[in-house]
Amino acid sequence: MKDTKKKKVKVGVAGYGVIGQRLADGVALEGDMELVGVADVAPTLAIRALKELGMPYALYCAVPEKIGDLEEAGIPVTGLFDDLISQVDVMLDATTAGIGAKNKELYQKAGIKGIFQGGEKNDVADVFFHGYANYEKGLGKQFLKLTSCNTTGFIRAVDCIDRLVGVEKVAVTIIRRVADPGDTHRGLVDVLQVDPVPSHQVLDLMYIMPHVKATGLLVHTPVTHGHIISMVLTPKKPITAPEALDAFRKHPRIRVVRIKDGFNSNTSFFRYARDLGHKRGDMYEIGVWEETVAMSGDDLIFAINIPQEAVVIPETMDGIRACMEMQTDRLEAVGMTNKYLDLVAGR
Amino acid sequence: MKDTKKKKVKVGVAGYGVIGQRLADGVALEGDMELVGVADVAPTLAIRALKELGMPYALYCAVPEKIGDLEEAGIPVTGLFDDLISQVDVMLDATTAGIGAKNKELYQKAGIKGIFQGGEKNDVADVFFHGYANYEKGLGKQFLKLTSCNTTGFIRAVDCIDRLVGVEKVAVTIIRRVADPGDTHRGLVDVLQVDPVPSHQVLDLMYIMPHVKATGLLVHTPVTHGHIISMVLTPKKPITAPEALDAFRKHPRIRVVRIKDGFNSNTSFFRYARDLGHKRGDMYEIGVWEETVAMSGDDLIFAINIPQEAVVIPETMDGIRACMEMQTDRLEAVGMTNKYLDLVAGR
Amino acid sequence: MKDTKKKKVKVGVAGYGVIGQRLADGVALEGDMELVGVADVAPTLAIRALKELGMPYALYCAVPEKIGDLEEAGIPVTGLFDDLISQVDVMLDATTAGIGAKNKELYQKAGIKGIFQGGEKNDVADVFFHGYANYEKGLGKQFLKLTSCNTTGFIRAVDCIDRLVGVEKVAVTIIRRVADPGDTHRGLVDVLQVDPVPSHQVLDLMYIMPHVKATGLLVHTPVTHGHIISMVLTPKKPITAPEALDAFRKHPRIRVVRIKDGFNSNTSFFRYARDLGHKRGDMYEIGVWEETVAMSGDDLIFAINIPQEAVVIPETMDGIRACMEMQTDRLEAVGMTNKYLDLVAGR
Amino acid sequence: MKDTKKKKVKVGVAGYGVIGQRLADGVALEGDMELVGVADVAPTLAIRALKELGMPYALYCAVPEKIGDLEEAGIPVTGLFDDLISQVDVMLDATTAGIGAKNKELYQKAGIKGIFQGGEKNDVADVFFHGYANYEKGLGKQFLKLTSCNTTGFIRAVDCIDRLVGVEKVAVTIIRRVADPGDTHRGLVDVLQVDPVPSHQVLDLMYIMPHVKATGLLVHTPVTHGHIISMVLTPKKPITAPEALDAFRKHPRIRVVRIKDGFNSNTSFFRYARDLGHKRGDMYEIGVWEETVAMSGDDLIFAINIPQEAVVIPETMDGIRACMEMQTDRLEAVGMTNKYLDLVAGR
Repeated sequence: MKDTKKKKVKVGVAGYGVIGQRLADGVALEGDMELVGVADVAPTLAIRALKELGMPYALYCAVPEKIGDLEEAGIPVTGLFDDLISQVDVMLDATTAGIGAKNKELYQKAGIKGIFQGGEKNDVADVFFHGYANYEKGLGKQFLKLTSCNTTGFIRAVDCIDRLVGVEKVAVTIIRRVADPGDTHRGLVDVLQVDPVPSHQVLDLMYIMPHVKATGLLVHTPVTHGHIISMVLTPKKPITAPEALDAFRKHPRIRVVRIKDGFNSNTSFFRYARDLGHKRGDMYEIGVWEETVAMSGDDLIFAINIPQEAVVIPETMDGIRACMEMQTDRLEAVGMTNKYLDLVAGR
Repeated sequence: MKDTKKKKVKVGVAGYGVIGQRLADGVALEGDMELVGVADVAPTLAIRALKELGMPYALYCAVPEKIGDLEEAGIPVTGLFDDLISQVDVMLDATTAGIGAKNKELYQKAGIKGIFQGGEKNDVADVFFHGYANYEKGLGKQFLKLTSCNTTGFIRAVDCIDRLVGVEKVAVTIIRRVADPGDTHRGLVDVLQVDPVPSHQVLDLMYIMPHVKATGLLVHTPVTHGHIISMVLTPKKPITAPEALDAFRKHPRIRVVRIKDGFNSNTSFFRYARDLGHKRGDMYEIGVWEETVAMSGDDLIFAINIPQEAVVIPETMDGIRACMEMQTDRLEAVGMTNKYLDLVAGR
Repeated sequence: MKDTKKKKVKVGVAGYGVIGQRLADGVALEGDMELVGVADVAPTLAIRALKELGMPYALYCAVPEKIGDLEEAGIPVTGLFDDLISQVDVMLDATTAGIGAKNKELYQKAGIKGIFQGGEKNDVADVFFHGYANYEKGLGKQFLKLTSCNTTGFIRAVDCIDRLVGVEKVAVTIIRRVADPGDTHRGLVDVLQVDPVPSHQVLDLMYIMPHVKATGLLVHTPVTHGHIISMVLTPKKPITAPEALDAFRKHPRIRVVRIKDGFNSNTSFFRYARDLGHKRGDMYEIGVWEETVAMSGDDLIFAINIPQEAVVIPETMDGIRACMEMQTDRLEAVGMTNKYLDLVAGR
Repeated sequence: MKDTKKKKVKVGVAGYGVIGQRLADGVALEGDMELVGVADVAPTLAIRALKELGMPYALYCAVPEKIGDLEEAGIPVTGLFDDLISQVDVMLDATTAGIGAKNKELYQKAGIKGIFQGGEKNDVADVFFHGYANYEKGLGKQFLKLTSCNTTGFIRAVDCIDRLVGVEKVAVTIIRRVADPGDTHRGLVDVLQVDPVPSHQVLDLMYIMPHVKATGLLVHTPVTHGHIISMVLTPKKPITAPEALDAFRKHPRIRVVRIKDGFNSNTSFFRYARDLGHKRGDMYEIGVWEETVAMSGDDLIFAINIPQEAVVIPETMDGIRACMEMQTDRLEAVGMTNKYLDLVAGR
């Protein structure tokens, strides 16, 4: 591997929650990056699991006055947030929405790069970023903001078709999970909740892909394993369902599955990833059900599955490559990310 | 009311389950019909409730050898199925799928009319029927089959726009509830289950409205209060969202609501109907959320709510009117049904 | 009815939410009480339903500056909160927790009585009240506080056995629903949440019945129709399961049902009440499953169902009788409540 | 390790479903056993995951005429069921309930041992087995049957206290999950379903521990991650809550946790196991919540969590040790199982 001679990019993760844990794991897998440590403020279950595992990642306390809580729980603390910031080239900020904007000042002062997750406001960053759709815009920028899980996922599919035949417009129906497994701070019971049209996800898509018109509905559902999105896509040039399927199969971050093989639900992906022995039962790929790819007149329809806990990890790795200019070519960059995360087309 | 001089049409209901109970209540409200009785085979909770209420509807035992079970539970039985059949002009068959086909032979022998629910196969009937969309086809026929709850509901909306500007094609996403409140024989937990495209509902739509092309996806969700359907409708002539909304508001079986007023979910309709004091918290109207009616290019998009337990009742009443030729004019017929069920446009 | 000569007790309801609506309906049914009106602050679905029904209850605006919101929604407003207070003998306060304590000052100034619901702190009232268990303590008091839904329900059962053979101690497992139908502001998904022992409900039981020792666990479950409580009760004198069942059957606010008859869940009670045509599908009685009443050595075990939306209504009516001294005898008082609410033993 | 000189016990697994997969993984971890292969009949997701992983376990086709289905799906098949049977000392039968009884005839013919899971009828085996509670009874027997997941779990806790102070009687409330993650063939929506008392689990407990009286209630809940059982235990000699907690902490298959640390639900265990990187997010230990261990008079109460997918694995490994007489001493045997499965007290 030619990368080994290069100095590895040093990365920190702020906020060791659902996304932060997976970002840390992702960085640890990328051969040309080094995870310096993670920062958090409380002895959460995620932090306690780190301790039970013998602290495979160094922990930094993000708020000095909270260090006592960690110590009381017997959690080894390597240093404070500033100590972490001083050692890294780029910080992945996965803190609660709103905190990232405050942290940005610290990153600016330290002269490091910062990549924020979908919960932050767009103006926190120089560029609203997606590895496959607008990699070039992120090159060398100091601050990037990733799209949220739904948007990251469906842009993969829209961008895939767009590069093939062009996309004029998209109407989506997002059937959204409302909580992650184990959450007790949010939820719905026996309710499908409806948001006004358009949802923020389609506005975000148009921000990333300004040449596409998008609108759509979002419905919250009482489940925890993956959003399902139903797409009605109007192509610029004619396309058939088999051509679309073929393009999806060639995409390393899209997994085409069959209902008749047993992939009959959002949770089937989770179950399969558990059986594959994936850490936490996670899956980086979005799913496309083969039996849902069809034509409505000249429009292409299909349904995708978004694994909300892990889907943004690859595009965040792409973001590190872009802002650090590790690769200048889009396909070379996403290819490196894919290689290290073992993302292979056609599975 | 001029109807009072006419002889009322005599109606029976076979199968006193979720739909059968509501059909019986519906017939009892129609001033030009008479409910002779209901038939069932076991002391279910629905039958026990009849008993606690003092048997407002006469009960006939549909299977002679089961009469002992009813008597043991102290349920007064008026007679056997044949006794009911011999007294009625038309039987509304809401039995478990498959039983209706067998009952049909009894109805044929007795020379009475029969109206079957959506669970039966299409060939059980002479006509696949929807009061608003193809009333004329049912006139004088011996056997009608109603569309299922989802199809009955969204045809109301598609027919409404079709009569205004014509509909070329429709792509739907049906977000389906999997059980009724109190069901313990079916269900899903923390799963969104996906069916292959196209779902039977869109095939049924094309059967009723053969000039419209339809396709779409169906996703099962773990809730009990109403299906939500997201529609992408391509009109033949241009239409605006306000024009569509206006047409929906003028339809007596469509209730236009606002998310900002509190109608933020499928269950909000149920809650509102309970607060209105509607029997069983039922609602006959489909709902349209004002904030979801929008354009995707020239396509009209909107979301509707289908109250699965009661939505087919009005169209079944229309069916009685058609097969018994109580009214020959479509609008006159649905108007009579609406009057008796207190369905008024613009609520 | 001899009551008709007496002057009816004038009652107002503050807070027209889930409980307030049912309190208003309850007062309207009690022949010796008069519902003067209800107070609320916003055009909620419950208030909009009132409007669609033609304002069967007069509405008073609880916060003067909010009257514009109601008028904008086209809701007829009869007056302000002070106008309602000035007309009533007793106010049933079902406002959000914390507001009742503030309202109390208004009631004190006006010299009227006030009855608060379980969400308020105990010190808001002179007496923590339960119609069956400590009616006498509420006689003539100015401020009463009702027990919460779970406590109200299981005290009925514990008091019933206590008056028969004495109860030494109780260990309960409360399997609690987390939301009401239609709620979108709270919920859980695919989670059973556990609270520390003891739960507040058993502390409340000991407050009302200080001679009984009680402890127990509370588990939150993602459902909306009724809490289920598993009881292990140590009697002072021996009792058999049939004797306990017989006592429950004689209690007008306990409904003994059989799993084999179809009452196999919490939701089966809701379904049955809907089929009975009860307003909103409500049930005032707690349920006891016959097949769960058994012995564990000398301890009595049984399971009860608590219909959380309506269970506190009868005991609140009892509270009006107590604080207004309408009846001085406990059984006479609860008997009057039961008569007007159609609560009959042995159904 | 001295074991290495000994010949390893050869084990096969029949039925590669939720339990079978975990049994195979368990055997693969035990240093003194060898997993020869697994048998199944269809290209399920579990089998497809094996293929994607490169067939770490050899697959045998349990029904010759089904081999075409596996080959069509591209699954490498090593042989037929007889081939597997002929190579093993003991077969772990985790097939669908009822199939095990038929397979037993094959095992008898081949003269191998067989261990059946909880779904089979008790008379399929010579002994109804639990590693901690009655290890000695399984020594050298040909056929063992394991207790089901709930029973396996709570017997650990009851046996733990029984060996300390004796247990006279137990009253349990089992709050049961109804499906595993990804199941679409069973489920409940917005319902708590109640079974008659006593549930089969307490009968099973009395079968294994005949000196204890047990009874209790079972309530089905719409969740997928772990049963919760509330116990009321009458000890023979006095015990305090801290003494009970101390005993639980010393048990390698019981994990004592604190609600205040974040273990506030059944799903919190699953989340924690995912964060620990456990395969499939599994946990072998039952959980006891420290804040639920308390006294009700002289009775001990506490609540436990049963991870239904994996809890029976350790006791099944114990079963292999017993029937193969690998160890004759109970504590030595469970200790070996624990060592290989990394089960350590006091975590």
